Amino acid sequence: MHKAGIAGATGYIGYELITLIHRHPQLEIAWLTSERNAGKCFNQVFSTPWDYPLITLADAYLRTDEVDVVFLCLPHAESMEAVSRFYAAGVRVIDLSADFRLKDVDTYKRWYGAEHTAPQLCAEARYGLCELFRGELSGAKLIANPGCYPTSVNLGLYPLARAGWLGQRVIVDSKSGVSGAGRKTNLTYQFVEANENITPYSVGHRHRHIAEMEQVLGAANGGGHGGPLRFLFTPHLLPVNRGILSTMYVDVSPGVTEERIRELYAENYAGEPFIHLLPSGEQASLAHTVGTNRCAIGITPADPSQTDGSEYVITASIDNLVKGGSGQAIQNYNIAVGLDETAGLK
Amino acid sequence: MHKAGIAGATGYIGYELITLIHRHPQLEIAWLTSERNAGKCFNQVFSTPWDYPLITLADAYLRTDEVDVVFLCLPHAESMEAVSRFYAAGVRVIDLSADFRLKDVDTYKRWYGAEHTAPQLCAEARYGLCELFRGELSGAKLIANPGCYPTSVNLGLYPLARAGWLGQRVIVDSKSGVSGAGRKTNLTYQFVEANENITPYSVGHRHRHIAEMEQVLGAANGGGHGGPLRFLFTPHLLPVNRGILSTMYVDVSPGVTEERIRELYAENYAGEPFIHLLPSGEQASLAHTVGTNRCAIGITPADPSQTDGSEYVITASIDNLVKGGSGQAIQNYNIAVGLDETAGLK
Amino acid sequence: MHKAGIAGATGYIGYELITLIHRHPQLEIAWLTSERNAGKCFNQVFSTPWDYPLITLADAYLRTDEVDVVFLCLPHAESMEAVSRFYAAGVRVIDLSADFRLKDVDTYKRWYGAEHTAPQLCAEARYGLCELFRGELSGAKLIANPGCYPTSVNLGLYPLARAGWLGQRVIVDSKSGVSGAGRKTNLTYQFVEANENITPYSVGHRHRHIAEMEQVLGAANGGGHGGPLRFLFTPHLLPVNRGILSTMYVDVSPGVTEERIRELYAENYAGEPFIHLLPSGEQASLAHTVGTNRCAIGITPADPSQTDGSEYVITASIDNLVKGGSGQAIQNYNIAVGLDETAGLK
Amino acid sequence: MHKAGIAGATGYIGYELITLIHRHPQLEIAWLTSERNAGKCFNQVFSTPWDYPLITLADAYLRTDEVDVVFLCLPHAESMEAVSRFYAAGVRVIDLSADFRLKDVDTYKRWYGAEHTAPQLCAEARYGLCELFRGELSGAKLIANPGCYPTSVNLGLYPLARAGWLGQRVIVDSKSGVSGAGRKTNLTYQFVEANENITPYSVGHRHRHIAEMEQVLGAANGGGHGGPLRFLFTPHLLPVNRGILSTMYVDVSPGVTEERIRELYAENYAGEPFIHLLPSGEQASLAHTVGTNRCAIGITPADPSQTDGSEYVITASIDNLVKGGSGQAIQNYNIAVGLDETAGLK
Repeated sequence: MHKAGIAGATGYIGYELITLIHRHPQLEIAWLTSERNAGKCFNQVFSTPWDYPLITLADAYLRTDEVDVVFLCLPHAESMEAVSRFYAAGVRVIDLSADFRLKDVDTYKRWYGAEHTAPQLCAEARYGLCELFRGELSGAKLIANPGCYPTSVNLGLYPLARAGWLGQRVIVDSKSGVSGAGRKTNLTYQFVEANENITPYSVGHRHRHIAEMEQVLGAANGGGHGGPLRFLFTPHLLPVNRGILSTMYVDVSPGVTEERIRELYAENYAGEPFIHLLPSGEQASLAHTVGTNRCAIGITPADPSQTDGSEYVITASIDNLVKGGSGQAIQNYNIAVGLDETAGLK
Repeated sequence: MHKAGIAGATGYIGYELITLIHRHPQLEIAWLTSERNAGKCFNQVFSTPWDYPLITLADAYLRTDEVDVVFLCLPHAESMEAVSRFYAAGVRVIDLSADFRLKDVDTYKRWYGAEHTAPQLCAEARYGLCELFRGELSGAKLIANPGCYPTSVNLGLYPLARAGWLGQRVIVDSKSGVSGAGRKTNLTYQFVEANENITPYSVGHRHRHIAEMEQVLGAANGGGHGGPLRFLFTPHLLPVNRGILSTMYVDVSPGVTEERIRELYAENYAGEPFIHLLPSGEQASLAHTVGTNRCAIGITPADPSQTDGSEYVITASIDNLVKGGSGQAIQNYNIAVGLDETAGLK
Repeated sequence: MHKAGIAGATGYIGYELITLIHRHPQLEIAWLTSERNAGKCFNQVFSTPWDYPLITLADAYLRTDEVDVVFLCLPHAESMEAVSRFYAAGVRVIDLSADFRLKDVDTYKRWYGAEHTAPQLCAEARYGLCELFRGELSGAKLIANPGCYPTSVNLGLYPLARAGWLGQRVIVDSKSGVSGAGRKTNLTYQFVEANENITPYSVGHRHRHIAEMEQVLGAANGGGHGGPLRFLFTPHLLPVNRGILSTMYVDVSPGVTEERIRELYAENYAGEPFIHLLPSGEQASLAHTVGTNRCAIGITPADPSQTDGSEYVITASIDNLVKGGSGQAIQNYNIAVGLDETAGLK
Repeated sequence: MHKAGIAGATGYIGYELITLIHRHPQLEIAWLTSERNAGKCFNQVFSTPWDYPLITLADAYLRTDEVDVVFLCLPHAESMEAVSRFYAAGVRVIDLSADFRLKDVDTYKRWYGAEHTAPQLCAEARYGLCELFRGELSGAKLIANPGCYPTSVNLGLYPLARAGWLGQRVIVDSKSGVSGAGRKTNLTYQFVEANENITPYSVGHRHRHIAEMEQVLGAANGGGHGGPLRFLFTPHLLPVNRGILSTMYVDVSPGVTEERIRELYAENYAGEPFIHLLPSGEQASLAHTVGTNRCAIGITPADPSQTDGSEYVITASIDNLVKGGSGQAIQNYNIAVGLDETAGLK
């Protein structure tokens, strides 16, 4: 059995990671950290029978020999140091924070407002969007697990970008369940405030996850139709526990039919166990993916009467806590060490 | 126009009070207080166009001449002093805290853990459960607005208690929307924690609202069947914004038929504009009352095949923010000063 | 007192109409029709004490002398005949169906798939988007109450269109509560299917409400920037009971600053009791409008760092059952007959 | 690999069964039936990539040689014949309908209003409440999977009944998610009707599941305190997708302390992988069990100040679709054929 540590285990992602590790035939929990709850057991923090003791990160640094992998669910900027220490101790690291997702430390600083303290590791880190970068993940010692919104957007648009068919202007209207905000107690996420409501936020090129869309899709689309991509991304707080739906409005190269786009996606995602391409006329919804590691993708022309129209509505949904967090982290680990990629994720 | 001040106006009850006052033909807002938000306007605290300035309680004490009535939505134990000061200034007071609901200051201290600092006013205060104590409310200068749970329970069982037909053991299983907890940010009331969940709390003679049930129903049933009442009250946190449903299991005097009980309720509540007695076989639900000042009451024998069975299931629902708070407060004011009792509440 | 009949009274809009009429100082219910429930009382169909008898439409035709106005909440295509008959009988008509919203009967036929049987009345009918067409509504005998989605979109964008500042491509991503589908029992609207989910539908120039956007905004923008408008409208089924949020992505004439746009909106909507223009940086949410007759509008540049950028995100929210249905209907009646426009709607 | 057929696969329980079978290391799907959707594939009926063809029951009868077990998710009264035919063909049967749960066919007829057509199989059938009757399930060819409500009630109270400590009067106030009603389209289960609501139903000895409580607990308690049990059971429709919480009000033999009761439960459920006994002061909630095969049980004295008081509040929660349906069915199969009892259920 492989042994896993989880740092920052008492958030929603930590809870899901434990659930998935319990289902994984080759992985088991070694230790869990929580700065706030160290000394308690996990079942004093969540409604569950799991009585794992919670230790501090400082204690975890002394127990690196007990683990094959550490999943880090720490806040951005805090994660850098922990990643460096586990990495230095020779432990494989799957970092679920934003700290190693961006190749360029200046871009990191601009979006996250923090100086990167481990720039040499940024070059080392692999961006763990499995379906797109599987080749780079095998054997990787440090994997940056993608953000939840970009996972839906990048999987939803990558085939178009890679083919160079994606128009410059990409409008992304995303809706996310409240767990995306973490296990916090702000008034905004209070039941009465969020329930029976929907609220746009970070409107106008403000949300940090745009950087991951630019990095992945911008690079892929580089030589293509329309030049550098410009994202207009509007996230909304949705009154559900989990799930992200991204409704994307894009221009594709003139004359490309829905059928050709469907072939393109089918080729790009052939054999992918977690990509669910929907048939013509069907749209992605949360019901397609919540509770699973899948990404569902729908493709619809803006004007179905014009078969060579260039505008499309692409819908993509994921479970933000699974494919957008814990599930993709497990998938990344499976790939990195050569296990069945779907282990623990069926 | 009568002028109203609201102390502690930035909770859910305060918001509802403003809504109802806007609909009231003879009442308008004079000032609003909020210790935390003084200096801001109301529309910086809630998603609304209402731009009332928020002042401190200290400032409100200097502006008692601008108001005919103050509605106090302050925490218990804090309300006592404010009530005393407004009362001393000759302003009519509707207190929505628990501080003046209990006749007996020792009972108050036992349940609320605080010494009562204005015991002389307790004698002065009228308990504002309008349908039961209307006679005492006319002209009242200080009215203690009832708690939300007891409003549903006391209205649901009073006719039985008054007739002396209520058995000793009263089991109350109540379910309340999350707004009942106030506009707070505890983890318990966070969307992800409360949504898709239901949680019993304060189980086992622990909830303070039991005191109001004992005071109202215990006194009424005094000479009746079965001696002093014993309440077993279990509140549950329900994943809805507002509304209380109380499902009550009671014994009535042997031989009393459903028909006789229905006659009893019909007599007790004849002409009441806000009591909705449901026909035989229909149960109270939140849909009957949310958004209204009504209390809906259903009456069903535990075993319909035994027409003289003595066990009954009484269901009662109210909107905790309206009949259980702001609406009853307005109704109390209307009664106290002799306005149409339904003004603002249709 | 003015007397109102409601045809098709047992849907969600009918229920809201009754609620608002009860609050209206000069309006009261004369009769209610329901083909399916005729012979029953209203409280056998909804959880409410209102025991109005339900009659057939055929009976209502014999009782036109009892009413000053009829509100018709009938399905499109069915409404035409009823409107014609009430109109012929000299009764003022507020039609909440789509039958008289479109000026052009060919457009009607194309979108609704039905031949219009009363084309002469189409010319007579006034489109009841009160804030935009108030001048045409005074004295009107037949008012077509706007659709719910178009109410949010047209109010949200009209100032830009009227100024001729609106770019050709208008992308509207709307989210609607489930009551928008009516009181139906399709599997799609079943609790378990809709809850914890969000689903795009009618994607790709398919939703009939586009016609009202084209009619109102297209005409207004006629001489302006960018030529005829092209709408890309994607509605989503949102897991809330009520409310619509429309997130709109538009281009405005180059060089127009946020400040100028705000001035434009402020002028257009000066003194409007039901338009809530949000301050810079604040977005419309359902919480701004649910339970009210208001429309809240937020205006945010796509890239706040470019003060003369031409892309904007306009957010608009309404309660689909109130401003998008019953409330606007009452507002239309108030305007038509010269009552205080806000009567019953405060 | 063992092969499973599912009859009536397109309800919520069927969907969950497939999910669990996918996680089960020794079980796989052979065929699925659906009378209404035969000829379609599963992914045309649910939002999922699973493209299993759906066949008729008649076709399934011809393919009994392809399966080791059939899970039947058919309506009661319809299931009898299918059970008989699969049983006769030598296939192991887990029946999720009510048809073989009751030992006594007269009791069956009284509660379900149907004549039992296979009374001889009733004697053969084992009642699959795994934790209580594991001994009888090993090798069983026909297992009747318990109802969802009785699973929570019987697991919650069995230790008391078995010890003969349970008082005669058992009051059960249960709350169930809407999936408990099946994938139906009644108005009651429409989103707008159920959301933001809670409704008691089948009040007053009317719900069929009482029969299973009487059969299991009544028999166990036979020789004990207080004579035959009388259940007062009130189910409520709760606005969540899944989960049951039963709040139970019971009398236990005088003088039995909470500590003794806790010891009793700990002994009865020692080593049980799916029973979660909560520590003193903690109550069962849906969050403890939704998405799992667990039953969480809380035990609290009605009056904690009286350590020998005889009234207790027992709370028990399960996921109605898992422990109350599909999960218990898999657990039953695992026990029957000697697999690891937790296979597929971790």
